Amino acid sequence: MSNKQAQIGVVGLAVMGKNLALNIESRGFTVGVYNRSRSKTDDMMKDHSEKNLVPSFTVQEFVNSLEKPRRILMMVKAGGPTDAVIDELLPLLDEHDVLIDGGNTNFHDTIARNKKLDESGINFIGMGVSGGELGALQGPSLMPGGQKEAYDLVEPILTQIAAKAKDGKPCVNYIGANGAGHYVKMVHNGIEYGDEQLIDESFDILRRVGGVSVDELADIFKEWNEGELESYLVEITADILTRKDDLGDDKNLPIVDAILDRGANKGTGKWSSEDALAIGVPQSVITESVYARYISMMKEERVAASKELVGPSSKPEFDKTELIEKVRQALFFGKIMSYAQGFEQLRIASEEYGWDLKFGELAQIWREGCIIRAQFLQSITDAFDKDAKLTNLLLDGYFKDIAARYQDSIRDVVALAVKSGVPVPSLSAAVTYYDSYRSEVLPANLLQAQRDYFGAHTYERNDRPGSFHYSWYEEQ
Amino acid sequence: MSNKQAQIGVVGLAVMGKNLALNIESRGFTVGVYNRSRSKTDDMMKDHSEKNLVPSFTVQEFVNSLEKPRRILMMVKAGGPTDAVIDELLPLLDEHDVLIDGGNTNFHDTIARNKKLDESGINFIGMGVSGGELGALQGPSLMPGGQKEAYDLVEPILTQIAAKAKDGKPCVNYIGANGAGHYVKMVHNGIEYGDEQLIDESFDILRRVGGVSVDELADIFKEWNEGELESYLVEITADILTRKDDLGDDKNLPIVDAILDRGANKGTGKWSSEDALAIGVPQSVITESVYARYISMMKEERVAASKELVGPSSKPEFDKTELIEKVRQALFFGKIMSYAQGFEQLRIASEEYGWDLKFGELAQIWREGCIIRAQFLQSITDAFDKDAKLTNLLLDGYFKDIAARYQDSIRDVVALAVKSGVPVPSLSAAVTYYDSYRSEVLPANLLQAQRDYFGAHTYERNDRPGSFHYSWYEEQ
Repeated sequence: MSNKQAQIGVVGLAVMGKNLALNIESRGFTVGVYNRSRSKTDDMMKDHSEKNLVPSFTVQEFVNSLEKPRRILMMVKAGGPTDAVIDELLPLLDEHDVLIDGGNTNFHDTIARNKKLDESGINFIGMGVSGGELGALQGPSLMPGGQKEAYDLVEPILTQIAAKAKDGKPCVNYIGANGAGHYVKMVHNGIEYGDEQLIDESFDILRRVGGVSVDELADIFKEWNEGELESYLVEITADILTRKDDLGDDKNLPIVDAILDRGANKGTGKWSSEDALAIGVPQSVITESVYARYISMMKEERVAASKELVGPSSKPEFDKTELIEKVRQALFFGKIMSYAQGFEQLRIASEEYGWDLKFGELAQIWREGCIIRAQFLQSITDAFDKDAKLTNLLLDGYFKDIAARYQDSIRDVVALAVKSGVPVPSLSAAVTYYDSYRSEVLPANLLQAQRDYFGAHTYERNDRPGSFHYSWYEEQ
Repeated sequence: MSNKQAQIGVVGLAVMGKNLALNIESRGFTVGVYNRSRSKTDDMMKDHSEKNLVPSFTVQEFVNSLEKPRRILMMVKAGGPTDAVIDELLPLLDEHDVLIDGGNTNFHDTIARNKKLDESGINFIGMGVSGGELGALQGPSLMPGGQKEAYDLVEPILTQIAAKAKDGKPCVNYIGANGAGHYVKMVHNGIEYGDEQLIDESFDILRRVGGVSVDELADIFKEWNEGELESYLVEITADILTRKDDLGDDKNLPIVDAILDRGANKGTGKWSSEDALAIGVPQSVITESVYARYISMMKEERVAASKELVGPSSKPEFDKTELIEKVRQALFFGKIMSYAQGFEQLRIASEEYGWDLKFGELAQIWREGCIIRAQFLQSITDAFDKDAKLTNLLLDGYFKDIAARYQDSIRDVVALAVKSGVPVPSLSAAVTYYDSYRSEVLPANLLQAQRDYFGAHTYERNDRPGSFHYSWYEEQ
């Protein structure tokens, strides 16, 4: 073991932890590294013997290897394993030490841990990390939440390892107290689910309704990536669609056609929808994308049902070239609705949990490094720069104008899909959200009458304040 | 205080508790009654001095007034108040006594309480009660879950107070262990949200797109209630639409137009969607109905947005008479999808929580007494009678046939609404669910490629078992 003191320590040397440690080291820091099972540490030291890494093989040794106040980044599995590491570290830490949980932890757990550790004088940061393995190594998008004084202690490191946007700004910023960082990461992941589902629906309708080939689709997505849809996910979609099967007999088969259509998930999209339900946010585009994954998992049922349940009796007509452009506009419209809902969720969560989130800064952090990185995010930052108290993205001039111009296209696309028997759950939810949001009167007046009728739940009136109950059971 | 021992006791004499006590007494039982604040008990005894009610004014007195093993029905607010009553009663109870929670309690709490009380030898039943105040008095639908031996002790009372279906069967049955009763009630409420929203969307599209007047709509719903849509909710909707404002200046104003369109909720619909997300069920129709309430609550935002966000540039044409019948078919189709999802949720929850739910019996219990009572439920019972292991209602011949016949109508209605700028979130979700469920291949193959590309999450293949990772970063 080296006698050099490390400026930060990383616990958990699976690929994300290892890559973050290497990223930090590459910026000129000495990094203490520790893993519960020794082999990962040995492997890392063997592969990177020239680096300023200080390996430890016991927790005590690891804690001793760090400068004070200690800065420790935990990259271990969420849940029990995270608690286990905290329990081991806690007796060895001093007041003002900073513990960072960089895992995909539920924000409720982060709030609870922050509170518990704060009682022992230990600072606890829950930090969302986006960008996958490569992002961790080269520059992720980071969303740290916790004590501000703790953030200040780690800021010099975080700003150096984070991705840099085109204007040079690092993709990290202080998000807010306790669970704010993990919450924002959760909503980021929900938005990512929405983006993916909207792309996948666009692919599906062009293919199944439009009769567009996979090769043509590769070109279409490539072209789209050169316009306002420019984003990492559209870029990789274009690339994916050029790739052929690497294992089967038919080497000309597009790889997508070799892949089983069961969409897995690791829970963060689900969490974001659960919390939208809990705090009262109509987050339908993301929720439909979660449900789309669930129904995709029922592969056997679907195959059986496809032989039993019939589709539409006639197919509507359309122009293929026009359809391609309409789907592009529908996709962008859908994306705007998804982000409008996501930022509405962040706004209401900020009030609910007392975080004072800076919405424009969040969009800024996501411009590079993370999965949803896109040109488009600059427009969100601009919108909140113009009006920090903007209630809904749709009320910003830029987004309002696009919605106005593209709405006819998404209406045509959704109507065509519905009449053709091809499901477009998130595109449908997007246009429905737009029309609900711009409805001065919704049929919830009838709902309130129903609820008052069967349950005496009372209703409010248009012409005066107060709660009222109608005498439904008396004859007129 | 009377010396007569009561056969059952009711704690909590607000309207639901009072009405249930009177219902039980009316079937020939002597009922002990107790309320934390004395005045409710005094009022009840004054109003019903001739009844076989045994009032108590302390918990000790109340417990002493009951035959052993004691049967106690708690009708108090869910959460803290329920815990408070349990804590007061617990030291005074004996082994094998039966405590029933008839409140709208979250099933997670019921599972926890059942477990905790079971350790003290006390039986605990969580019982869903549907039917509102009138149902409680005249015959509710009851969904009791907990120890089977405890159910057997209360069954003679429950079967007498429950609503009776047309075939004479009482609308109560043993649902399953611990939280099963409250779970089933929660899904019942979710389904109720869906039914209401589907009706409200039908009303809205006929009114806003079809130009149908409220008076005409009253007749339309009345007529619908004479066919396959026959149900309590359609019946009261028809009645509501005949009612005029009782307070404003214009005595010809339909009451619905005097009511503010902010749709309130008490949380059970939200819970059912939260658990659908948690256990992996694509429950989109109900979830959209929850979100429709949320967006309706944003009245001020909507009024402002209605002046900013433009609608479709042209309106599609349609035939009014045809539209009315198409909306009827769309509504019934939507209802079938909502129940298909609801019963799918019950099926997966039954496995997840180990309840062995009897799906046909649940539909039977809902035939009378509760808010969703409808002719239609008999068809669900019939479907499970034919095949107790039916995976999805859509695969039953009756429902499959209706879906096949009505699908063109819901496609036309949803397309018309989308092109007209009128939101129909639950109808859209219904047709989307149908098309997703009958899709042999969904674009989740592209999703899995994306996930493997950015996160090395691996994918499954169509042609062989196992998990695979593609070399995305190598040049082709």
